[in-house]
Amino acid sequence: MSDTKRLETDVVVVGAGLAGLTAARELVRGGHDAIVLEARERVGGRTLNEAVGPAFEQVVELGGEWLAPTQHRALALAAELGLETFPTYSTGANLLERDGSIHRYSGTIPSLGLLPLAEVGIAMARLNRLARGIDTAAPWTARIAPRADEQTVASWIRRNVRTRVAREAMRIAVEAVWAADPADVSLLHALFYIRSGGSFERLLDTEGGAQQDRIVGGSQLLALGLAQQLGERVRLGAVAERIEHSAQLLDVIAADGLRVRARRVIVALPPTLAGRLRYEPALPAVRDGLTQRMAMGAVVKCMAIYDEPFWRADGLSGHATSLAGPAAIFYDNSPPGGSPGVLLAFLEGRAARATLRLSAAAREALVLDGIARLFGPRARTPQRYVEQAWSDEPFSGGGYAGYFPPGAWTDHGPALRAAIGPLHWAGTETATVWNGYMDGAIQSGQRAAREVADALG
Amino acid sequence: MSDTKRLETDVVVVGAGLAGLTAARELVRGGHDAIVLEARERVGGRTLNEAVGPAFEQVVELGGEWLAPTQHRALALAAELGLETFPTYSTGANLLERDGSIHRYSGTIPSLGLLPLAEVGIAMARLNRLARGIDTAAPWTARIAPRADEQTVASWIRRNVRTRVAREAMRIAVEAVWAADPADVSLLHALFYIRSGGSFERLLDTEGGAQQDRIVGGSQLLALGLAQQLGERVRLGAVAERIEHSAQLLDVIAADGLRVRARRVIVALPPTLAGRLRYEPALPAVRDGLTQRMAMGAVVKCMAIYDEPFWRADGLSGHATSLAGPAAIFYDNSPPGGSPGVLLAFLEGRAARATLRLSAAAREALVLDGIARLFGPRARTPQRYVEQAWSDEPFSGGGYAGYFPPGAWTDHGPALRAAIGPLHWAGTETATVWNGYMDGAIQSGQRAAREVADALG
Repeated sequence: MSDTKRLETDVVVVGAGLAGLTAARELVRGGHDAIVLEARERVGGRTLNEAVGPAFEQVVELGGEWLAPTQHRALALAAELGLETFPTYSTGANLLERDGSIHRYSGTIPSLGLLPLAEVGIAMARLNRLARGIDTAAPWTARIAPRADEQTVASWIRRNVRTRVAREAMRIAVEAVWAADPADVSLLHALFYIRSGGSFERLLDTEGGAQQDRIVGGSQLLALGLAQQLGERVRLGAVAERIEHSAQLLDVIAADGLRVRARRVIVALPPTLAGRLRYEPALPAVRDGLTQRMAMGAVVKCMAIYDEPFWRADGLSGHATSLAGPAAIFYDNSPPGGSPGVLLAFLEGRAARATLRLSAAAREALVLDGIARLFGPRARTPQRYVEQAWSDEPFSGGGYAGYFPPGAWTDHGPALRAAIGPLHWAGTETATVWNGYMDGAIQSGQRAAREVADALG
Repeated sequence: MSDTKRLETDVVVVGAGLAGLTAARELVRGGHDAIVLEARERVGGRTLNEAVGPAFEQVVELGGEWLAPTQHRALALAAELGLETFPTYSTGANLLERDGSIHRYSGTIPSLGLLPLAEVGIAMARLNRLARGIDTAAPWTARIAPRADEQTVASWIRRNVRTRVAREAMRIAVEAVWAADPADVSLLHALFYIRSGGSFERLLDTEGGAQQDRIVGGSQLLALGLAQQLGERVRLGAVAERIEHSAQLLDVIAADGLRVRARRVIVALPPTLAGRLRYEPALPAVRDGLTQRMAMGAVVKCMAIYDEPFWRADGLSGHATSLAGPAAIFYDNSPPGGSPGVLLAFLEGRAARATLRLSAAAREALVLDGIARLFGPRARTPQRYVEQAWSDEPFSGGGYAGYFPPGAWTDHGPALRAAIGPLHWAGTETATVWNGYMDGAIQSGQRAAREVADALG
């Protein structure tokens, strides 16, 4: 153990993801001093670029990736940093794998057959309508909150969707959005989240929705750009472990003895990880209990890289849905210009955890099997295969985001954002708009910075 | 920060509750060396004695308290330590507060009216029957597991119990057992837990059930007796923070630099707290995800202490149920001989969290109001009032025990007990018999000790 090193600043930010970096940058702009402690040797949290060629734009994202047209904060940050966007490739037919055969379709919802298709449409419309009753700043106050928070999304689907295929499609849609099984997620949380993004379809859609646009050079450039502005204020490899706090004094203690004294701290971690810091004195039961309950989804983002996007010549968009699994959702994830060609496959929720028990080689084989069933035998032999298992990342704890099981919003919701003395909370899980997305992370960082600036006066 | 202090042993145990102390004692008996690291300045975990008079037997329990006739391990330990038991006072009528009036009743289930009473009886019988299909060592393998783990107990009650009063009674029964709302708990978890204790009624009953007997001098004597046998192997005030592990090497690092090298570690903490240790390398996603999901119940154990148990002269047992709350369940908790007289009131689940937001004085007033409505105006002015808020205890995280929300048993259950290399898990949450009780803690410690002894050869 090295000797204690002491620093002093106005505000210490724990976590150099988009939320923490945004908060620090806002505070520094406002004339306050800030230090950002980041456990990893990189910034960006759940955003991470991976080069797939030597050119600037030959990059894919192993984490958070897309921008939606209503994600004004993320779009503004991209513009400010001089980053360009380009549309997710979506020309041509989408594919559905179901009962051993492959079907082509267009639009968001696959060709499930008339009755299941109608059922899925009605179910989504119902969820959207219920979601309109939710104030995303206080979901527990909704008229339907007691009833919605006592049940899982699975219970709701079982009661509201009858055909097997439609239930399967709803399960896959839920997994695609929350990286969790419908059994895991509170119906109230699903409604809150739908509301925060706009509608269920908007969360699922490419054009007009959450998967519409990408950033040339990769989404991690947002975090890298902020970090560059912050310079040496960002300290990599600093694992925050303990926060000692009182009305007079605040110290954040990191592994290897670094101790930062500040007037305020912004903890910009997913709640489950925020709960793993040690607070002295301990936090109130309602806050501690929240961190015991808000678990992370599980996702493995898998990419097969080819010399060209050969599926485009077959009239395929690269977007696909498989009811067979284990990978259920696919996208064309090629860089602008289509060199190289990249097919993206998601392992989500139970499929993520089940395949994480396998060897990396066995998992890769399963994913490539699925890609090949959809896109043909040429897909089985990519030039390169990469994957990122967010559940295996101790400083993320999973992905895409944290979610509430039943009962938790009702009982612990008010502790999600509320500052406790000099302790403030950021992170996309605390956002009221585009919760769970990069845009929500930015909103949360801006909000936390405002709270702190108001407090510092 | 003090200098690093290094120790070496065969087995390091984290947590000196009943599970950890049992494990260490078994290992030492088997000829192995062990060191127990305990964060608090006391042993006993969620058991804690409080003196209410100068005599040995004038003690009440602020935590785990009672023994059931089928808790063979706890009874054997008590006998071995030379401790005597005595029956919980239950002579006379029980009380029910409902719709503004007080009713007398006998037996476990209050006088709710004929139809609600029948409904509660049928619901409990159904739950018991479903529970019989559960293998408590592997609940996720049950035929009904997928269906039972996708819903909350609240959803089940809503579908199976119709009258308002019966639903209220079921809610109070659930709170009394899990210190959580029916909305929080997976139906599969409830069935598992019922099965591990024997039946729903056995969990609720005094005579023949989980509240039948008490230990003269207080239940913490179980832990204190084990700790005495272990002597200086138990290190108080040692807050374990990090576990470095590999096939060759195992180090447990505590705050202030204590580093214990061992061949095996038994983490005898509730899973949510086990998840707050830092593991290097990080644990597999399925284990980490389990610790993100298994939250603790919330309970405040409140006691009003009088010069005598005056309610006994009124023909009252001291046991009561209030549908009005916030305290819902009451017991006569006087020491043997009835001097002083003690009435015990539980604030559980949402009532615990709601009242923990109040001042201690306001919470005490609410509890005494409830006691006085039931037991008369004399109850309003105790000699002394004590309470223990387990949710405010950072080294317990809540109480009585951890529970699973929906989806978690299915997806993470196999990681509850399974050792990971040299890392073993104990604690009542890992028990297959009397899970959540002192008896389960002892079973888990014995099982973990066996695992380790087998591994050490």
